[in-house]
Amino acid sequence: MKRYLPVLALLISLGVSLCLAQTDQPTIKDDFRPSTLNQPGQEYPQVNSQGYARFRIVAPQAQSVSVSLGGRGGTPLKKTDDGAWIGTTAAPLDEGFHYYRLSVDGGTFNDPGALNFYGSIRWESGIEIPAHDQEFYALKDVPHGRVQQILFPSKSTRTSRRAFVYTPPDYDKSQTRRYPVLYLQHGWGEDETAWSNQGHANLIMDNLIAEGKTKPFLIVMTYGMTNDAKMGSIGSFSVAPFETVLVGELIPYIDANFRTLSDQPHRAMAGLSMGGMETKTITLKHLDVFSHIGLFSGGTISPEDVKSTPGFTKNVKLVFVSYGSRELGGNKGGGRGGFGGDPKANADALKQAGLNSAFYVSPDTAHEFQSWRRSLREMAPLLFKD
Amino acid sequence: MKRYLPVLALLISLGVSLCLAQTDQPTIKDDFRPSTLNQPGQEYPQVNSQGYARFRIVAPQAQSVSVSLGGRGGTPLKKTDDGAWIGTTAAPLDEGFHYYRLSVDGGTFNDPGALNFYGSIRWESGIEIPAHDQEFYALKDVPHGRVQQILFPSKSTRTSRRAFVYTPPDYDKSQTRRYPVLYLQHGWGEDETAWSNQGHANLIMDNLIAEGKTKPFLIVMTYGMTNDAKMGSIGSFSVAPFETVLVGELIPYIDANFRTLSDQPHRAMAGLSMGGMETKTITLKHLDVFSHIGLFSGGTISPEDVKSTPGFTKNVKLVFVSYGSRELGGNKGGGRGGFGGDPKANADALKQAGLNSAFYVSPDTAHEFQSWRRSLREMAPLLFKD
Repeated sequence: MKRYLPVLALLISLGVSLCLAQTDQPTIKDDFRPSTLNQPGQEYPQVNSQGYARFRIVAPQAQSVSVSLGGRGGTPLKKTDDGAWIGTTAAPLDEGFHYYRLSVDGGTFNDPGALNFYGSIRWESGIEIPAHDQEFYALKDVPHGRVQQILFPSKSTRTSRRAFVYTPPDYDKSQTRRYPVLYLQHGWGEDETAWSNQGHANLIMDNLIAEGKTKPFLIVMTYGMTNDAKMGSIGSFSVAPFETVLVGELIPYIDANFRTLSDQPHRAMAGLSMGGMETKTITLKHLDVFSHIGLFSGGTISPEDVKSTPGFTKNVKLVFVSYGSRELGGNKGGGRGGFGGDPKANADALKQAGLNSAFYVSPDTAHEFQSWRRSLREMAPLLFKD
Repeated sequence: MKRYLPVLALLISLGVSLCLAQTDQPTIKDDFRPSTLNQPGQEYPQVNSQGYARFRIVAPQAQSVSVSLGGRGGTPLKKTDDGAWIGTTAAPLDEGFHYYRLSVDGGTFNDPGALNFYGSIRWESGIEIPAHDQEFYALKDVPHGRVQQILFPSKSTRTSRRAFVYTPPDYDKSQTRRYPVLYLQHGWGEDETAWSNQGHANLIMDNLIAEGKTKPFLIVMTYGMTNDAKMGSIGSFSVAPFETVLVGELIPYIDANFRTLSDQPHRAMAGLSMGGMETKTITLKHLDVFSHIGLFSGGTISPEDVKSTPGFTKNVKLVFVSYGSRELGGNKGGGRGGFGGDPKANADALKQAGLNSAFYVSPDTAHEFQSWRRSLREMAPLLFKD
């Protein structure tokens, strides 16, 4: 899977440095605690203060059990006397959220101890390595907005489609106030649940709003792989059917059913990975619809893009581009060639040309949700600054 | 698990009748199709037009794989040449939704092909046997309400707690209209996601409202096992902490943040199984708060209950009691002694005493969600008839 390639690269390099580090006999601290993403009452998987993860799977008659996390080939578990298989990652994991899966006797299953999150076109196990900055997406005693599931009619796909709409804490206090809207897209193999479940977009917004760091706005999240009936091949993926659903059906529905500021200056679009590519394609075609653009680990906007897009300079109020630092390493801050060019150099060039261009690098994270949680936190305050 | 006992009893009796039927060599029709609750793109599990379920699990090196559905001891799968394990239930399953799990080499896992649903204090696999009356909870081209996730402050449990609020299709059209509210509880081992995910409560309401069969009202669903920190023992369960959250915290929050009719005549409570027991306990203690009571496979209200509850006759506008037919079989329409007496006889006695008492039996279903989907469909039109 394309979006795991940089993760794999990272894990390989981690594996290498670990081999070096092992001559120092690194001590694994014995302060393991259940992951915050475990199913209720489940003791495993566990995480320690260094970021090591420990797994325990009961399967007494199994021949082999391994976990996909922890380096190339994952972490093999060893059978203990009580019939459970136990193992610890060979190296600490990056801060934040990671998808994983089990291999049990050659079959792929989820960890019965962990909650599941939709990624890679399936519900996968998830584990959370507590991050030093986790407070910004923590559930706090502040006013909370809502995440509303809507079912909107879609003529082009002949069904009712699902979307989630974050409304800020004060949305239902006034019956007249209107709000700007950010359309926020998931990555390949994920769906419209990702930004709330894995991303904590609602809690990030609740906390930013409570601190007065961002204007309140709505966030709309829907499924972006509209045409991918066969599920699993990014090669057959086309943006066009999603573009029709988003611009022709969802946006008019949102504007008719929520108290939005329904004009171009108050409408943004952002997305992670594949969702960034969708964002670039769709916003540049519809500069009458969107004024703010965010690409999280999902491409760049170059001076050539600006030049070849009539009205760009006049209509675009923000270009926000971000990456995880581990996606850029060893490549002079650029890399990820598939997305087209050096994103930092492009961001700088746009700024020099007078555009409102922001570039953010999430420290010590890869192509994973911790990068994107931070990207949302960084971008939100820059939106809709009239 | 208590709530599976009747299911087990049913499956045992099915097993017996199947042994008899097998002398007739029943033909299993070859019209298997993927279950509607499969993960995207997954071919298995499958269901045929008779209600047989077929499972296929890839685990080439496994020694044994079985599925918990299909009779006492479940359905053992057999290994095929391609490394996959395949098996079909020995008998058709009842119409509707069933939880299940896999046993792989002595470990408990979910079916990687199926979606997961929270039941039995864990996310379990789910399969749907198409019901002859499935139209009433189908996703149709009608106006749709929303399911809103809220996080409400709870002093008694020192956290923000989650609830889901169904708002009917026209809730956001008028900014002044106010609505009655039904508080609707899940069963033991389930949570606040059950009534939307497994129960399709939102679609049931959307369809009833579209047909003009019920008044629109809000439905509020939250977690009812408030004190069960250890997860798993119904013996240690106490209603009191949930009563505090519901009556002291959630109801005031809902009335302050949604356009409700916030008086006793416009407030109902219902629940399934353990949620029915909670409903009975809480409503009878708070007849100043609730006027309509629904118990789905979760007890009965007897003439003695009425007599020993001051103000019952004056304050209660509806007592709705329901069961699945298979829960009552062989027991003269009564049975389920643990819930206290014969529910049909009690319902009749209440009616004779002049109370608005309704009793419903879901045909050919057990202690499972198809009984409760139908119970909601039957009860909704009886609520809030001023």
